[in-house]
Amino acid sequence: MPPPTNAQPETHPLVGQPVAAIDTPALVVDLDAMERNLQRMAEFARKHGIRWRAHAKMHKSAAIALLQVRSGAVGVCVQKTAEAEAMAAGGVLDVYISNEVVAPHKLARVARLAHRLAADGGRLGIAVDSLEGIERLAAAMNEARLATRTPAVIDVYVEIDVGQGRCGVPPGPAGATLALAIRRHPALRFAGLQAYHGRAQHVRSPAERRALIARSSEQVLLTCRLIEAEGVPVPLVTGAGTGSMVCEAASGIWGELQAGSFLFMDADYARNERDPAQPAFEHALFVKTQVVSTCAQHAVCDAGHKSHAIDSGLPLVHAPDGEHVLEYANGGDEHGILRAAPGARLPELGRLLWLVPGHCDPTVNLHDQLVGVRGGLLRGTVERVFRVDARGALT
Amino acid sequence: MPPPTNAQPETHPLVGQPVAAIDTPALVVDLDAMERNLQRMAEFARKHGIRWRAHAKMHKSAAIALLQVRSGAVGVCVQKTAEAEAMAAGGVLDVYISNEVVAPHKLARVARLAHRLAADGGRLGIAVDSLEGIERLAAAMNEARLATRTPAVIDVYVEIDVGQGRCGVPPGPAGATLALAIRRHPALRFAGLQAYHGRAQHVRSPAERRALIARSSEQVLLTCRLIEAEGVPVPLVTGAGTGSMVCEAASGIWGELQAGSFLFMDADYARNERDPAQPAFEHALFVKTQVVSTCAQHAVCDAGHKSHAIDSGLPLVHAPDGEHVLEYANGGDEHGILRAAPGARLPELGRLLWLVPGHCDPTVNLHDQLVGVRGGLLRGTVERVFRVDARGALT
Repeated sequence: MPPPTNAQPETHPLVGQPVAAIDTPALVVDLDAMERNLQRMAEFARKHGIRWRAHAKMHKSAAIALLQVRSGAVGVCVQKTAEAEAMAAGGVLDVYISNEVVAPHKLARVARLAHRLAADGGRLGIAVDSLEGIERLAAAMNEARLATRTPAVIDVYVEIDVGQGRCGVPPGPAGATLALAIRRHPALRFAGLQAYHGRAQHVRSPAERRALIARSSEQVLLTCRLIEAEGVPVPLVTGAGTGSMVCEAASGIWGELQAGSFLFMDADYARNERDPAQPAFEHALFVKTQVVSTCAQHAVCDAGHKSHAIDSGLPLVHAPDGEHVLEYANGGDEHGILRAAPGARLPELGRLLWLVPGHCDPTVNLHDQLVGVRGGLLRGTVERVFRVDARGALT
Repeated sequence: MPPPTNAQPETHPLVGQPVAAIDTPALVVDLDAMERNLQRMAEFARKHGIRWRAHAKMHKSAAIALLQVRSGAVGVCVQKTAEAEAMAAGGVLDVYISNEVVAPHKLARVARLAHRLAADGGRLGIAVDSLEGIERLAAAMNEARLATRTPAVIDVYVEIDVGQGRCGVPPGPAGATLALAIRRHPALRFAGLQAYHGRAQHVRSPAERRALIARSSEQVLLTCRLIEAEGVPVPLVTGAGTGSMVCEAASGIWGELQAGSFLFMDADYARNERDPAQPAFEHALFVKTQVVSTCAQHAVCDAGHKSHAIDSGLPLVHAPDGEHVLEYANGGDEHGILRAAPGARLPELGRLLWLVPGHCDPTVNLHDQLVGVRGGLLRGTVERVFRVDARGALT
């Protein structure tokens, strides 16, 4: 069952309260910064004449997905069936599961969702990388058609491995084999190629990112030619993330960008050297935390790695007032240890601090809500609270 | 507001189903192994004549806490006020927040909970490491007494830093100063010392762990002597974890063990060389996952670091049938990459696999439920489902 939707967020008791009223630790969104990032992305896509499909695995909030759609996103992509269900339950009509699903009971959920979205005038997509996956998906769509007595078509993307080394068939003839297999099933529409190079996102130098995506481009082109040689058009190539998107946008090959992190920008993405073509996205997601213990050497705050993910490094300490120059060291599940730069002073007991998480996606997944603040982190007011609808939506 | 309690877990639709019915990824508890671990801990504590207070920051489930209390635990400890509220709401009567709380609005919650538990015949404890923390706690207890018109006393432990390098005053006179300050407030009872050496838990060699806790013991003794020199008895020294507990139990200084991980045993604790005095705890917590993609070099499963925490290393692939010898490599938020040992074969598409998480505490915190299986991971049946009551209980 998908979780209930994010209706009436304005009724949250925090709305209208000053930033000081937000208990710690909490995940806070600087709405002004988020909206500037959203506008930068929309402008970038318009300028390049490219579609963008925001990756909702990052924010997991249907309300934020709808903000993105209103700004020009064609819809969202997600990685899990349960995330797709949560987005659809929250009113998102165009959802793409950019990942493989092979369990028959889960494909039954996928097929039911495809029929539900089609009935509402929406659409569902999914990625495949095996003949077995295609046959099982077709069987599930057939079952759902019989059960609902309404026809629906699901968009099926063939995933090719363009350098990530994870899912996807190798570039080349395997892609054509799968495209032809998809076309044998009337309820499946061959929608194009899923081509995402995850590792390229975090390569620091723009020149190296360009070189990696240039190699991916050759692999995509080769696969497209082989598919087209079978008389099958490739309607779309979809992929890219916040790190490499300027390369895919400039390629003339990708027709759709799947960036997600640009909206919140985490500490790890900020470590990338910015390509001059890249919009200047800014940090919009913060962990509000408080100092709960002090000693001569350090201070301890109440946010550890149950408050923020550390798979891509520890958080940075943000200093909206420029007062403290602090380094965050790992203090375990519930604590962070703060050390001052030489000459700087340690924060006092009770002091409120702001952390920029190392990786936004798994950080958001630790929280039930995102507290949206207008007017800055120091003197702002809570304007709305986003429910993390797909938090823990693992299946 | 604390989450609702774990009433009638037997009504969960998975109960009575075979293991095959558990969707992936899911967190599964081998109930037979868990109960053996529980019994080993109870026997260990009995043999050493020492109290044990299970750390519920690990399992976050009131139902599991009650199982531990029925096996002889005096109660639970937790790290967060919201965890304490969740445990109390689930029927646990003796709760200790082994951590510092300094925010006045949070101390108001602590004080209300102390009064609620006292009214039910239970008790609440908390750690302090500053005069300001003590004064604020006393003020909150006073407010709660006026509001509830019932007297209550909270157990207050002075935390000393015995090697962890995090919270706590240095061993020595600072501890005596805090003990005396606590005794000036009638609603605060000086309950003893909190002395936990977190880093010692994961030191691999038993001899090195013994050396670290021997040093901690001297520091505790020194502090006890200084407090007692002020005419103040030290009722209890509490601390220790699964890694070092045999040392604290043998010391004659600690009167209470706070081990938590022994119940589930994660991959990181299993990397410790076992002290001969340590009970042979076994893995009882697993992520059930499925292979969703395969290629010549590797297989990909549907559990990434949104399914299990990786702060203490990647999960191990458990082979209940001994068939697959696989290594798990990081595949990002939603994927794991499985590589076969030389000569071993890769698992096929759709194959179900079991992972032993690197660190149980933050892994449990990613899930809403723990699926309890009786009769083994291969042919067992779901007997009960534990709600993770304090999942995301960060404040």
